[in-house]
Amino acid sequence: MLESVIRRNAENTERIMKNAVGYVVSNNAIGTIAISSFDTTVSVGIVKLICGVLVAAARSAVRDLDSTNDLCFLRVGTRKFEYMVAPETEFSIVVIQ
Amino acid sequence: MLESVIRRNAENTERIMKNAVGYVVSNNAIGTIAISSFDTTVSVGIVKLICGVLVAAARSAVRDLDSTNDLCFLRVGTRKFEYMVAPETEFSIVVIQ
Repeated sequence: MLESVIRRNAENTERIMKNAVGYVVSNNAIGTIAISSFDTTVSVGIVKLICGVLVAAARSAVRDLDSTNDLCFLRVGTRKFEYMVAPETEFSIVVIQ
Repeated sequence: MLESVIRRNAENTERIMKNAVGYVVSNNAIGTIAISSFDTTVSVGIVKLICGVLVAAARSAVRDLDSTNDLCFLRVGTRKFEYMVAPETEFSIVVIQ
């Protein structure tokens, strides 16, 4: 299912990537990388640390502050670039620009 | 020092607050709330969970992915509002909009 969505949006992805450094889409259900513009080592690092650890910490902080609220997205500005994270139920998207 | 910066920027703060829900500035050196538009319980929660736990997790993820990189800011989009976090050395600013 996720694979067909990725194929259907290939043109959009290409358009967005003109102004971005790279992207990773992880499959949350089976914990794999669905598609990525980076090599495996970098992709696994991003999925583990950003989609895993950081999204979990953000979601938990948001819910602890207000139990009726929930995380929608996360933007992490760094000296070199910005990580933009969309943590969906079935998949997580990270775009780096 | 921080107090005089806050006083000097009171007019700016007031202008920004027209379009925001609220703000908290924490003094990182002594771990106190320098100024806040929220009551103490809410302010302490935001400082502890957002400026403390979440910023530490984000900084650590960014450095783990690239040891020459560093965190500059954090935007946490939630269903209800957005937390915008500027983690400086001496103080951290959280604006909620």
